[in-house]
Amino acid sequence: MESIVEFILELEKLKGVTRKVRPLGLERYENSAEHSWQLALLAVSLADHAEPGLDLDRVVGMLLVHDIGEIDAGDVMVFTEGGWAERQAAERAAVERIFGLLPGGQGAAFLALWEEFEAGESPEARFARAVDRAMPVLLNLANDGQSWRENGISYERVVARVAAPIREGCPALWDYLERRLGEARDRGWFGAG
Amino acid sequence: MESIVEFILELEKLKGVTRKVRPLGLERYENSAEHSWQLALLAVSLADHAEPGLDLDRVVGMLLVHDIGEIDAGDVMVFTEGGWAERQAAERAAVERIFGLLPGGQGAAFLALWEEFEAGESPEARFARAVDRAMPVLLNLANDGQSWRENGISYERVVARVAAPIREGCPALWDYLERRLGEARDRGWFGAG
Repeated sequence: MESIVEFILELEKLKGVTRKVRPLGLERYENSAEHSWQLALLAVSLADHAEPGLDLDRVVGMLLVHDIGEIDAGDVMVFTEGGWAERQAAERAAVERIFGLLPGGQGAAFLALWEEFEAGESPEARFARAVDRAMPVLLNLANDGQSWRENGISYERVVARVAAPIREGCPALWDYLERRLGEARDRGWFGAG
Repeated sequence: MESIVEFILELEKLKGVTRKVRPLGLERYENSAEHSWQLALLAVSLADHAEPGLDLDRVVGMLLVHDIGEIDAGDVMVFTEGGWAERQAAERAAVERIFGLLPGGQGAAFLALWEEFEAGESPEARFARAVDRAMPVLLNLANDGQSWRENGISYERVVARVAAPIREGCPALWDYLERRLGEARDRGWFGAG
């Protein structure tokens, strides 16, 4: 029990990892813990748009753990160029440390979920990655492009980063977002770069 | 897809519902969204202490949705006396409104999870409720009793509110907390009331 408590208190730190988008109606930035909660519920809400037979419980598990490596590595926008190999190595070291706090079986199960998400090969991982890419887009579409404008992210960069993973993981979600992103471009909700 | 997006953006509001405990190392108060994320991971971490055959995926589902009624009703400490019937009615109205944003099947599935948690009768609901009661205790035990002292909550009131549900849902967790709570009393980490 001591080791479980040590693990769950270590997770406190994800509440302090801030992202670039602000929750609707709040001045502060979103943190990666509340983001993970919302992703899990978005995945379940999209059940009717998942391919038949998809294991949504595993998708939820992946989304709950996928950002835990940020406890040591911090959050970096998906638009950041370069450094992704080093970053993935840092996140891997972090999750090995953190999941290693738990008794063997449970720590290994969490690590397997994290690795499945990172690999992005299973249908469940592709669906989870689509959800992860879509959520900040949905917030920006509701927020007049707040984090795109604050960080100078153009329409073209957004589409280049999110179109393929969302289309591969959840085609219906991309059909919807493609139309909404076009409308956002017409409204000038993007940065210049 | 429009209705799913409306639902997930409505959930933004739970990020602004604050609780009485502060995340370790942060000045601000915890919000109910990040709290729900942490509960889901605590439940899975405690798998070896759950009774055999327990459906942990359903426990996770319950914990992810159990606080959504606070979007309209706000968070109230478990130590608040009275008003619980009115409060439960307000939370029920809230979740019926919010889950009602979704297409029928998915909204009904979320509502069923919320109702199962509220009823507290299934083994899964009892386990989920034990986890929900235990997490703020664990934070206070790591925080020198911050929310107990700030809100004048005595050792006796904590035990009266949390002992039975935690013992019923996860006996091993209560055995651990009972000892830790006794140590906290010796250290003066409680309020007077």
